Formats: sequence, C-alpha cells, structure tokens
Amino acid sequence: MEARIDQRTADMLRPVSIVRRYTKYAPGSVLISFGDTRVLCTATSLNKLPLWLRGQGKGWVTAEYAMLPSSTHSRISRDNAQRGRSQEISRLIGRSLRAVTDLNALGEHMIQVDCDVLQADGGTRSAAITGAWIALHDALSSLVSEGVCETRPLLGACAAVSVGLVEERLLLDLCYPEDEAARADVNMVMDDQLRLIEIQATAEGTPFPQESLQQMLALGEKGIRQLLAYQQEALTCED
Amino acid sequence: MEARIDQRTADMLRPVSIVRRYTKYAPGSVLISFGDTRVLCTATSLNKLPLWLRGQGKGWVTAEYAMLPSSTHSRISRDNAQRGRSQEISRLIGRSLRAVTDLNALGEHMIQVDCDVLQADGGTRSAAITGAWIALHDALSSLVSEGVCETRPLLGACAAVSVGLVEERLLLDLCYPEDEAARADVNMVMDDQLRLIEIQATAEGTPFPQESLQQMLALGEKGIRQLLAYQQEALTCED
Amino acid sequence: MEARIDQRTADMLRPVSIVRRYTKYAPGSVLISFGDTRVLCTATSLNKLPLWLRGQGKGWVTAEYAMLPSSTHSRISRDNAQRGRSQEISRLIGRSLRAVTDLNALGEHMIQVDCDVLQADGGTRSAAITGAWIALHDALSSLVSEGVCETRPLLGACAAVSVGLVEERLLLDLCYPEDEAARADVNMVMDDQLRLIEIQATAEGTPFPQESLQQMLALGEKGIRQLLAYQQEALTCED
Amino acid sequence: MEARIDQRTADMLRPVSIVRRYTKYAPGSVLISFGDTRVLCTATSLNKLPLWLRGQGKGWVTAEYAMLPSSTHSRISRDNAQRGRSQEISRLIGRSLRAVTDLNALGEHMIQVDCDVLQADGGTRSAAITGAWIALHDALSSLVSEGVCETRPLLGACAAVSVGLVEERLLLDLCYPEDEAARADVNMVMDDQLRLIEIQATAEGTPFPQESLQQMLALGEKGIRQLLAYQQEALTCED
Amino acid sequence: MEARIDQRTADMLRPVSIVRRYTKYAPGSVLISFGDTRVLCTATSLNKLPLWLRGQGKGWVTAEYAMLPSSTHSRISRDNAQRGRSQEISRLIGRSLRAVTDLNALGEHMIQVDCDVLQADGGTRSAAITGAWIALHDALSSLVSEGVCETRPLLGACAAVSVGLVEERLLLDLCYPEDEAARADVNMVMDDQLRLIEIQATAEGTPFPQESLQQMLALGEKGIRQLLAYQQEALTCED
Amino acid sequence: MEARIDQRTADMLRPVSIVRRYTKYAPGSVLISFGDTRVLCTATSLNKLPLWLRGQGKGWVTAEYAMLPSSTHSRISRDNAQRGRSQEISRLIGRSLRAVTDLNALGEHMIQVDCDVLQADGGTRSAAITGAWIALHDALSSLVSEGVCETRPLLGACAAVSVGLVEERLLLDLCYPEDEAARADVNMVMDDQLRLIEIQATAEGTPFPQESLQQMLALGEKGIRQLLAYQQEALTCED
Repeated sequence: MEARIDQRTADMLRPVSIVRRYTKYAPGSVLISFGDTRVLCTATSLNKLPLWLRGQGKGWVTAEYAMLPSSTHSRISRDNAQRGRSQEISRLIGRSLRAVTDLNALGEHMIQVDCDVLQADGGTRSAAITGAWIALHDALSSLVSEGVCETRPLLGACAAVSVGLVEERLLLDLCYPEDEAARADVNMVMDDQLRLIEIQATAEGTPFPQESLQQMLALGEKGIRQLLAYQQEALTCED
Repeated sequence: MEARIDQRTADMLRPVSIVRRYTKYAPGSVLISFGDTRVLCTATSLNKLPLWLRGQGKGWVTAEYAMLPSSTHSRISRDNAQRGRSQEISRLIGRSLRAVTDLNALGEHMIQVDCDVLQADGGTRSAAITGAWIALHDALSSLVSEGVCETRPLLGACAAVSVGLVEERLLLDLCYPEDEAARADVNMVMDDQLRLIEIQATAEGTPFPQESLQQMLALGEKGIRQLLAYQQEALTCED
Repeated sequence: MEARIDQRTADMLRPVSIVRRYTKYAPGSVLISFGDTRVLCTATSLNKLPLWLRGQGKGWVTAEYAMLPSSTHSRISRDNAQRGRSQEISRLIGRSLRAVTDLNALGEHMIQVDCDVLQADGGTRSAAITGAWIALHDALSSLVSEGVCETRPLLGACAAVSVGLVEERLLLDLCYPEDEAARADVNMVMDDQLRLIEIQATAEGTPFPQESLQQMLALGEKGIRQLLAYQQEALTCED
Repeated sequence: MEARIDQRTADMLRPVSIVRRYTKYAPGSVLISFGDTRVLCTATSLNKLPLWLRGQGKGWVTAEYAMLPSSTHSRISRDNAQRGRSQEISRLIGRSLRAVTDLNALGEHMIQVDCDVLQADGGTRSAAITGAWIALHDALSSLVSEGVCETRPLLGACAAVSVGLVEERLLLDLCYPEDEAARADVNMVMDDQLRLIEIQATAEGTPFPQESLQQMLALGEKGIRQLLAYQQEALTCED
Repeated sequence: MEARIDQRTADMLRPVSIVRRYTKYAPGSVLISFGDTRVLCTATSLNKLPLWLRGQGKGWVTAEYAMLPSSTHSRISRDNAQRGRSQEISRLIGRSLRAVTDLNALGEHMIQVDCDVLQADGGTRSAAITGAWIALHDALSSLVSEGVCETRPLLGACAAVSVGLVEERLLLDLCYPEDEAARADVNMVMDDQLRLIEIQATAEGTPFPQESLQQMLALGEKGIRQLLAYQQEALTCED
Repeated sequence: MEARIDQRTADMLRPVSIVRRYTKYAPGSVLISFGDTRVLCTATSLNKLPLWLRGQGKGWVTAEYAMLPSSTHSRISRDNAQRGRSQEISRLIGRSLRAVTDLNALGEHMIQVDCDVLQADGGTRSAAITGAWIALHDALSSLVSEGVCETRPLLGACAAVSVGLVEERLLLDLCYPEDEAARADVNMVMDDQLRLIEIQATAEGTPFPQESLQQMLALGEKGIRQLLAYQQEALTCED
C-alpha cells in the first residue's frame, strides 16, 4: 500500500505536540500542533455573562476561532473571524466544550476560549478543540484555586479529529494537500467515554454511501483515543 | 406509546406543501412548508462568477439563508443573515446543492439561491434545502430554454430532514418545541440514491452513544425518501 | 382612450387582497397584495422603548421596510434595508402609523412593524402602509386582550396610494412599468376622514405645474377611499 | 397678530446670506445661511460615473448631506450621514438638482455635491438645496471653462423652503423652535418657472385638511420667489 | 535666500486668525485659520464618562478629528474619520489637551472636542490643537459659570506647529505644497512653559541626522511662542 | 541605585530572541521577543499594488499590527486591529520599513507585513519594527531568488526601542509595569547609520523639559545599536 504524502500509514495521526502555559496572562494557554498545523488556544474567565443567561445560576463557555493573516498559503484577510467559515468553527468549538462542562456547577461565570491559528496545514478545527479542552481545564482549575468553584466543573474530556476519503482510501487526520483531494470528509468530536459530541460529514464532490460513514467513524475513534491520551499526558507531566 | 405534541407518530413527517413559481421574477421560486415552518426558496442565475472561479470553464451555486424579523417567537433582528447561525446554514445549503449539480456542464454561470424563512417552527434548514433543490431545478431548466445549456446540468435530487433524541425517543422532523427539548439531533442531507451529502449531528446536552447515530440515520433516511417523492410530485404536477 | 398595460382604466386600483393572520407569532400579521406587489406586514409589541422616550408615559410605533433579494427583476442585495431608499420608506411608514395612534393611551409600549416585500411590482410603500395599518390594529387589539390597554389606542385608519403622470395621463396605483415611465408621481397617505398625513410628490424628469398636483391628489383620494373600505372589510370578515 | 419668536411676520424669510467660493478646492463652494442655519455646499466634478450609468452618454448629479457633530443643540454622532434622516435628505437634494440639470448635455461626468451643516436652526434641507444649486452652477461653469461642455448644462434654477402649521397659523421658513411646535409642515422645491420639483408634506401630530396644503403651497411659493432672486443676485455680484 | 512659495521667510508662520464663538450651541466654538487651512474646533461637555473611568472622581477630555469631503484637492470620502490617519490625529489632540487639563479638578465630566477641517492646506493637526485649546478653555469656563467647577480646571495652555526639512532648508509651519516636498517633518505640541507635550518626527523619504531634529525643535519653539500669544490675544479681546 | 522591577539596570534591554522562519508559508517569518513581549512578524509579497500606485514603476511596503485577544492582562476584543491605537502602530511600522526600502528598485510589487502580538509586556511596537525588518529582508531575498529583483532592494536596516521617564529616572526598553508608571516616553526608530526615522515622544501626565528629550534619545540610541547587532547576528547564523 502506497504511503501518504508525509509517509504516514492511513490510520496514523501526525506528530502531536502540546505546550501548556504558552502565554502568561490567560489562566489556560496551550500551543498545540498536529504536524505543521499550529493553534494557540487560550481560556479566560470573564466576569460578565451574556444578557440572556443572567440570573439563571449557571455559566457558559464560548469560543472564537480565527486564522492569522499569514497562516495560510495565500495570505488571508484579517477580518476572517467575521466570515462564515470561522464563525461556524467558533460555534462548533463552543458547543463541544459546553458538552463536557458542568455549567450549573460553574455558576454565573463565562469562560472565553480563543483559538488562533498560527499555521494551517489541515485539521485546524480538530487541533483547536483538542487544545482548547486543555486550556478550558486549566482555566477551570484556576477558578478552583481562586475559591470560585469547589471542584473543577468538568464532566469529562473531549478531543476531535478529521477523517477523509481520498481516492477510495480512508485516511486519518488529513493534512492540507490530502484535505484538498478528499471526496468526503468527516470531523468528529468525542468525549472520553467515546460517545459522540459532534459529527460533521460532508461530501466535497459526489455523495458517499452510508457504509463509508461507519468506516470513517471507526477510524476517527481510533485517532481520538490517542488524542485523549496525549491530553492526559500533557496534564500529568506539567501539573 | 404517547403521541407527539402535534399528534404525529415518531416516524411521521409534518404535512409538506410545495408551491412552485410562487413569485414571478426568479426563474426558480418555491414556497415550501414543513408544518408551520415556511420558507421561500428562489434561484436566480447571475452573469458574474466570483473572481476566484473565473476562467476555469465551470460554474457555481451559492446560497443565502435568512429569517424574516417576525418569523420567530420573539422578533429576531433584521441583520441575522450576517450572524454565525445563518451563515452556517447558508454554507450548508450551498454545499448540498453543489453536490448534485454538474458544475462543469453548467459552464461559467452562477446560480444564486435565497432561502427566506417566513415562519420558523423547527427544521428550517431541512425545508430550505428540500425547497431550494426545486428552485435550482427550475432555474437550471430556464438555462436550457434560454439555450445556455443543452441539458439541465443536474446530477440528481437532494433533500434534507432532521431527527432528534427527545427523552429517549427518536423523533423524525422535529417541530420547534421538540427541537428545544432534544438532547441530540442530526440534520441529514441525502441524494436520490440515498447516499450521504451532509450529516451534522450535535449533542445539545450530554454526548450520545454511537448506536443512537445509526438509529437516527435510519429514521432520517425514511423521511428523506418521502421528501424526494414529494419533490418529484411537485415537478410532475406543474410542468 | 387607450387601456393601461394591465387593461385598467386610469382611475382603477389593481386587485387588492388582504390575508390577516398570515403568520402565527406576531399578534398582527397581514399579507397584502396590490396586483403582483405582495408585502408581508407584521406588528409586534416590544417591552422596551427607545432610551429617549422612557419615562414620559407614552408609547411609540416604529417600522422597518425591506425587500427580499428575489423580490425584484434583478436580484437586490440582502442589505438593502440599510440603504437610503429603504430607510426613507421605513420612516414614512412609522410616521404614518403614529399619526393615527394614540401614543399617550398606548402607554410605555413600543409597536415594531416589519414590512417585507415578497414581490415588487410598483407601489410597495403604499401597499406596506395600507397592510401595516391592519397589522397595527391587530397588535393593539392584543394589548387590549392582554389587559395592557383598556381600549384600542387607535385614532383612526390610514391608507396610501400612488398616482403618476404618464405621457400626459394621470394614472392611479402605478404598476412597475408605469412607474418607470412616469414623469412625476405622488405618494399619498390619508386617514379615514380623508385628511392628509403625508404627501411626497416628485418630478422624475421635468418639473410639473401646480395644477397637476391638485389633480393627482383628487385621483389619489378616490383610490384611498376604496382602500379604506377594503381594510374595514378585512377587519369585519375575519374578526 | 402676534410676532414670531424672532419678530418676523408669518410670510417672512429669515435673513439669507450667500458666500460664493467659500473654500478653494471645489469648483463650486457656497456658504449659505437662512438665519442661524448655516450650510456649506460644494460641488466637485468626478471623472467616474457609477457603474450602472456608464456608456449611456449621459451624466449624473449626486449629493451627500451630513451634520457636523456640534451643529445641533445636543451633540449628534459623527456617523449621522449613514442614518435614515440624512440619507433621505441626500436623496432629496440629488433629485432636486437633477431635475434642473441637462444630464445628456453634461455627458459622462458626475457632479458630487456635499452639503455639510455647520449650524442647524431649522430648514437645513431647504438651505442646502438653495445653496447647492449655486455650487452646481459654478461647477458646471468650470466644465465650460475647461472645455468639457460647450454651454452650461443647466435647464434652470431651483430653490427650496419650508412652511409649517403652528398653532393654527401658517408660517414661512420655520426656525428650529417653530419646527418643533408645528403640527404639520411641508418642504417644497420649485424651479424658476415656479413649477414643482418636490413636495414633502408631513403631519407631525394630527392629520391636516387638504385646504391647508393649498395654503401652505401658496405661502411657500412666495418664499421661493425671493430665494430665486437671492440666487441670481449672488451670481451677478460676484461673477 | 529664496522666498517660500507664499513669500514667507523660513521662520514665519502663516497669517493666523481665530474666531471665537463661531457657532452657538457648543460652549466652546472656534474657527481657526493657519493661512488657507481652516478648522472648526468645538468643545462640549457631556454628562457621561466612558465606562472605564466612572467612579474614580476624575474627568476626561476626548477628541474627534475629521476632514469635510470637499476640504482637500481631490474629494476625500466622508468616512475618513474612521480611517487610520484621522484616528491617529484624534488621539493626538485628546492627549495634548489632557496634558494641560486638571482632570481631578474637572470631576466626573467629559469634554468632547470636535475638530472639523473645512479647508486643508497643510498643518491641519497643528491648527486643530491650537484652536481646540481655546474651545476647551471656553467649555471649561462654562462649567464654572454653571457652578459645576469652582475654578477653570486648566493647568496651562498648549499649542502646536509643524516644521519641515525641504531641500536642505528648515521651514516653519508648512503649507501643503511644502509638506508634499518635505524629506522630514516634525509636529510639536508644547505647553506655555515651553515644555514638550508631544513630538512626532517622521522621515518621509530618507532618514535624517539627529542634529536636524534639534534645529527643527528650536524653530518650532519659535512658532509655538507666537501661537501661544495669539491664543491669549483671542481670549482677551472677546471676553 | 535601585534595580528595575526585573532587575535590569536603567540602560539594559530585556533579553532579545529572534526565531527566523517561524512559520512556513510567508517568505519572511520571524518570532521576536523582547522579554515577555512576543510578536510574530511576517512579510509576504503580493501581486497587486494599491490602485493609486499602479503604473509608476515603483513598489510599496505596508503593514498591519494587531494583538491576539489573549495577549494582554484583560482580554482585548478581536477587532482591535480596526481601532485607533492599532492603526496608528500599523502606519508607523509601514513608514519605518519604507524608509529603508528602495521602492524604485522593488518595482511594481507590494510587500505586506503582518505583526501579530502573541504576548504584550510593553514595547510591542518596537519589537514589531525590529522583527518586521528581518521578515522584510527575507521576503525581499525571496524576490531575488525568484528572479523578480536582481539585488535585494534594501537601503539599510532599521530597529526601534522605547525609553521612558519613570519617577525621574530614564529607563531603556520599558516593560509593561514601567510603561504604566512613566510620566513620559519616547518611541524611536533609527536606521543602521543611527539616523532618525521616527520619533514619537509623549507626555503621559505632565509636559517634560526639552533636555529630557535629548537624554532619552541618547539612551535609545544605545539600545538601538544593540538591536541592530542582534538583527545581523540572526541573519548570519541562519543563512
């Protein structure tokens, strides 16, 4: 079987690196790399809730995703955060993190997550979610140290990966040239019980059979297991 | 088994109505209803392609989705088309329609689809895609009558539906109160060979097991079969 | 005398249709047609007044007018509500409705009117005002049922029509091709005592003599009498 | 009969002053005052036509109206030019000037008129139109000197004034306190043959009878006659 | 030595004119001219402080600078106030005025300064600062008359001027053609003890030696001495 | 003498680190740190010049500066690039780089520089200019390798530093707490012949005497000498 463009086998992740406390102001700050894809994920706790949530005794987690202008092959304009694709990913990150946060236990606090892509080589949303979860973990830990919460209001971990169908082969964790060539791809987010949080499957060109979806989910689960392990390792090493 | 809020069984669609040629200027114009959800879908062909597509000999289909201010329970502001949710749905509609359009055969033309929600009672994106496909069909037919294309550059039909997990029951085609109560839901787009074009599954509250996804897909496929039949009926009756 | 493009005589309105309660969320919701011109008019009561009006014990009526992208011959961009023409019409609708509303009796409530043009074939602002008045009526009735006001805080009815000077003939209720050809036109709003609320007369090409204005006003008054009767009929039939 | 707030009789204009060539870059530049209302009107010719007018062999006149932040009683925000009222007045000025310009003789040139209110004491739109016409005249003269046009492509002059119904009295050229107190007012634009270009009559409070409109038009005509004379005087003195 | 384009010697200011109380609503309102550069500077006191300053017992001075569309050689677009250059100058004016205001003595009030350029012929920011200081002085005096402050919370005066290096000659108070030709220029703001408030020196083309900076500062100081005298004269004459 | 907050002497820079080729797409990409201040500087060459420069045979260098939301103590909103301070710094960076670029030799190409602050601890604009110069150098070198230019169109190097007056002491390269406490500060940009490119001196609180400016310039020159040496070292090591 032919090797992938970067010599990986079909079911291999790219090398993952996680640097915790990459910057000093945000209580959660993680630089995560999936190969050449590099995303800075930070989590800050803000004093004010959005208006529609006030007075309900529970909190919120929200996220913003954006790409630096020079993070892509051809420079992308600086206002990309306002555009459809970035907003869609921002919303995905927020929903994913909320699914593993105990919003009631959080109380009336808001966690603001920012995912800034320093370099984009495919899989930026997966890297963002995987890194952002650690930043969220660390920001919630700060709330504990500050006496705001008694225990970290986290229900579990979550991680994300992409799988694609490229020339009839299923490939895990697509890099940019593979992503460009894929006829279909799926982005999956799972929790640490391997339950589904989000599935976004798209036929880039022609529609695909339902069996392919099952196979893609199985391959993705394999990747997510590893990513969940990397997250735990990062938390253990540095704490 | 308890009936649903609107007396349907779990696997029933709401009443579907499709009015073709609802307005007179756009070559494709469809008013589609899924129960009380009502969306006006139009398709217009524009002379100019986006810059990045020019000179490649192929066409494009793009879509904009927006809700009228009075279409919801509490009035929504008129600029909602710029916001994340509307942009996300706009992009979904565009991708779905492109997956069944022969962009090469279309040549350097752009089809602009507009989906304006007159009344929202759950499932607006599914209704929009299902109706927009007919509007696209009719706009492409106009290109044939005008001699721009020899045959209608369509590869097949597509339709969409939502399925949700509400208090441990799987329900087809959620109305708004059901959607609010769902712990997970999936929006599915399929072509007329029942292949997948898009799957967006989301855990609103807690993550859900992979088996639920399989069951939701099966239920959704059932609904999409019916919607594809309604589309064909609408095309036959009025042509 | 030559018949008009749509076979009407000079002093005939186009067929008028009024569908009350067209959508279900807004307490006032009217689909009005003047021939092929179709406008959805809704009226909602909002809890908050604009800042500058608070604490004065009186209410406000405001309106927004916009055209759906596919409502015109060549697609119009979705942000047309922000542009000069739409804003001008929005303000006209608001002023006209306020002239027949008892703002003191309304108390500190705001009625938000939305007029969305589904199809534009001339006279959209006249149709909007005529339909919006019914929507306003119904929204104010709701305030009575809800016990907010004792009686409906309405001082009377209002309706609007256009008159134009086309090749030396005065024509009532211009359709789009007539409007394009007019050298002068006037939009008039009157109350049910046939007093003037607004007159906007414009020379499209060359200025026109003052006698023409008098004749146009007389012709318009004739049309408005009929529109006021249609409004009453709509209120009677369905109540 | 009681004198007006500023001692005028009901049919008197405020003192009018017209300074031509007030600034040096724009070929037409006029500072006009109606009492304490002071508007700087400039007209510049631009090389480029709006896209939709190109290639038709004719020109265009467009206008922008805005108020300086400190021109009013309470400071107005600097972006008022984008708001409904300013846009409405901008459009009125443009239409009025086009009605007396020979757009065909102008050829493919655009005249950009700017009306910036330095101080607002009622009647700013009337002062703007009256002053802008002189600026337009001077900019068109420049086109003649530059050899672009053979003769000044002007069909006549135009001027504007307001009339209001204040406590049952009809008053010409309202100052701000009178405008605030008016139950109805009309803004009129006429050409130098005393034909109508624009009429905008509005009931601020209660609707008004049709006779009042006739009386207001007669009073306004009287004011416009004088303004047309002031314009001619300004052109004669300084040329 | 060759005379300058407008016959001045190298160390001469252009004729300065200062008209206090140019408009009637703002408590401080000054029309200042440096030759053909003409700037309307107004100062208004607002009831509300920016959020971040509330509750600290001290006030603020802020400024907005903008050019009228017709103030320059080629018409500038009306939204120039939002652009980088205008915002930069707005911030400079605000900082300069705050440096001579006793913000603690001012108490929780905000002075809003507006500098609108009617005609630009070089040195607009210097003229704006020099004129705005008088407007600030007058607005602060109003606070004293209104009993808001006991004494005028001013620490001193400030004025500004530009100096440039044009073809090896140092020139004071550049007019536009000189500014265009300058290889380097400096904008200086000083208080009435001839201490520095702001220096902005820029090499337009090639970098310049440190000695030139010293010489430019000396020449600028000479100009500022005169401007400070003109300010005092304006205050004396009219009070 | 008391040590500084971070133990430096008054005339010491913070530790400087320069990582060339930090990201892979932009031909110039530098991560520069001045202590905890960390800025990613990239330079890309674009095919299109701004409209106003086309056809003159020369090129342009432009820059955008922005802070990541989590780069500061309290999160800053993502649209800070549009605000006054960021725009002012963007313009400063662009002017500084153009002063050492041979725009004629560059030909009709545009170099787009982006400076994104990952962490802000004072001196971000100085770090940005110092790092951006290396990115510019590398992007211009690419143009040589691609055969676009024969030699690198650079006239020299440039670097920047801040100096402040903190409680009567002059300090080089202020970190954030020092910057907050400074009564005056100066940002200086010099070329490698130690000539001045830009000086921006500001009295934060009270105005300062002219002698202080001289002393600040002397101290800044010392810092810039070192920074110029670090730049050369970075270029040598890695080439």
